[in-house]
Amino acid sequence: MSKRVYNFCAGPCTLPLDVLEEAQAEFVDYQGSGMSLIEMSHRGKHYDEVHMEAMALMKEVYRVPEDFSVLFIQGGAHLQFAMVPMNLLTPGTRGAYTNTGTWGKGAITDGKACGDVYVAWDGADENFTRMPNADEIELQDNTRYLHITSNETIGGIRFPAFPDVSVPLVVDMSSDYMSRTVPWEKFDLVYGGLQKNLGPAGMSVVFVRDSILENTNKDMARYLRYDIHKDKDSMFNTPAVFPTYMTGKVLKWMKAKGGLDVIEAEAAQKSGLIYAAIDNSDGYYRSPVDVACRSHMNVVFRLPSEELEKKFLTEADQADLLNLKGHRSVGGLRASIYNAMPQEGAQALADFMADFMRSNG
Amino acid sequence: MSKRVYNFCAGPCTLPLDVLEEAQAEFVDYQGSGMSLIEMSHRGKHYDEVHMEAMALMKEVYRVPEDFSVLFIQGGAHLQFAMVPMNLLTPGTRGAYTNTGTWGKGAITDGKACGDVYVAWDGADENFTRMPNADEIELQDNTRYLHITSNETIGGIRFPAFPDVSVPLVVDMSSDYMSRTVPWEKFDLVYGGLQKNLGPAGMSVVFVRDSILENTNKDMARYLRYDIHKDKDSMFNTPAVFPTYMTGKVLKWMKAKGGLDVIEAEAAQKSGLIYAAIDNSDGYYRSPVDVACRSHMNVVFRLPSEELEKKFLTEADQADLLNLKGHRSVGGLRASIYNAMPQEGAQALADFMADFMRSNG
Repeated sequence: MSKRVYNFCAGPCTLPLDVLEEAQAEFVDYQGSGMSLIEMSHRGKHYDEVHMEAMALMKEVYRVPEDFSVLFIQGGAHLQFAMVPMNLLTPGTRGAYTNTGTWGKGAITDGKACGDVYVAWDGADENFTRMPNADEIELQDNTRYLHITSNETIGGIRFPAFPDVSVPLVVDMSSDYMSRTVPWEKFDLVYGGLQKNLGPAGMSVVFVRDSILENTNKDMARYLRYDIHKDKDSMFNTPAVFPTYMTGKVLKWMKAKGGLDVIEAEAAQKSGLIYAAIDNSDGYYRSPVDVACRSHMNVVFRLPSEELEKKFLTEADQADLLNLKGHRSVGGLRASIYNAMPQEGAQALADFMADFMRSNG
Repeated sequence: MSKRVYNFCAGPCTLPLDVLEEAQAEFVDYQGSGMSLIEMSHRGKHYDEVHMEAMALMKEVYRVPEDFSVLFIQGGAHLQFAMVPMNLLTPGTRGAYTNTGTWGKGAITDGKACGDVYVAWDGADENFTRMPNADEIELQDNTRYLHITSNETIGGIRFPAFPDVSVPLVVDMSSDYMSRTVPWEKFDLVYGGLQKNLGPAGMSVVFVRDSILENTNKDMARYLRYDIHKDKDSMFNTPAVFPTYMTGKVLKWMKAKGGLDVIEAEAAQKSGLIYAAIDNSDGYYRSPVDVACRSHMNVVFRLPSEELEKKFLTEADQADLLNLKGHRSVGGLRASIYNAMPQEGAQALADFMADFMRSNG
């Protein structure tokens, strides 16, 4: 029997074991075809089924309204940092951005290289420990959209609610994609990589309001145009076959376990176990972030000293609780508890935290 | 035991069976880690080894000179259609392109959207049945590079030799990547998708002459900049983990079978079997392309009637010789015999062609 650990990696990250085993079983000979799915034409019957089913499941599981399309595009959230302003910022319009941490900042950097972009709220002075309230976001004239990062993977903060502002939202959801119900009516476009809640690395999923595609920039190379990907059902060029296939399986797994409501409740519960371990530690464990903005995906915390943090990591490794080191840019510890992390994994970590504190108090 | 067919698909395409079986065996629990490789941090030890080894093997197997770097970028050749002119066409410079078929034309379409691009040779009048000689290519002043498509997958033609011209070549090698020795001294940049000779879909490999990166456009989003990918060893963002892993295995397989010289000789031999079946058929099978430009990867041919072509396809399917239908834009038949197609597969097809002609002469 193969070994299985609890993997708290921030991404790429843990996937459902059932999904991995199913993919393994059919890897070399897909449905008796005498080929692997990854060897098949993307225009053929087998892959076409996989592709169209994954697209349909995306909309079904995330309860996406009819007037949105789903697009599969390679290049990760980083290429979306470019494509959003390149497509949406038509002459005379501006993009507003919230600087909420590493990812918000990344979107701003690339946005500025692609269009007229400004910072409408900046969390740097508070060391990125919270998200803004709607009334703190300063929008200027001719703003086409407000770009937000729904969850900052490194800082461990999330928007508890999506802000009510006077312009449509564009949301980078990379690290809390499909982990909670979202207000589609506020969005023009949503994007994120697969590699947290949805599958392996190598593909982004973009949801776009169809009506906005009539008024996007068209004088660009085709791969960079949302309208082209939409018109071709994300088969303008050879798609990322394997990530598409895997995410289809993950979506079926999500559906089978009860869908978005169950996933959302579990995320609150799993992260709640770790936050409780922090809150009940009399300050031994410290969370640097505003309680109202605590991420349900990435729980960041510190110990009394860096020495203890190192010891914690070593002993957690020995207990098969892996990848708990915080991002190198902020230090400390981070437990990423994405959709595929079992309840038992979060419980095991909470128990380990309590034990460690008792032994190293 | 699982079934195995001969898959003549133009891409994604057949991969070595050994490679598929090896990947299957370690898919769920990678090297006893208790995780799949696709669940691992791209900054971790395991993936880092996979990534750096694949990059090193790319250069070793293709005999790439020291002063070139290899980049792994998502988005297929189509994103390269954009990135080449966006990076290389600095103000005042122009890109020359050869229109040699579907892919040459695609590069031109996107090139024109991204920079000052012109057609230096056009094969449309001859229905794309041959590649130009160097002296037919009309270069204009201030030409930064000549873009060529080394092998046209759909038309079934290749450059028998890379043209000697007065500017550096930029080459789309998608469909004959690493199938023959190439004159690196003529190139500034070479690109292509994995999904023919090198692995599953979802990643491009770019080889770029280091010195040209000093003089590329920099005021662009980071994902679109070659210099950024180079500086970060193609880990600027989360890489396409699974395609990188698979191509590493394919490269090891290529090396084990003797490397580029063996691959090149086999390609000539395998395609030679099919061309011989055509040439020895007294005109029953017809190849529309110039003999000197016959592709060693994609052999296109016609039968005396469309009815016979349909019958051929049906009976080939029954004989487990799959995906022989020509591209919908040109009709007829096409056998794609990439690196992983065994000699026995090409022989089986040649035998089938002879048998079919005898029965349907």
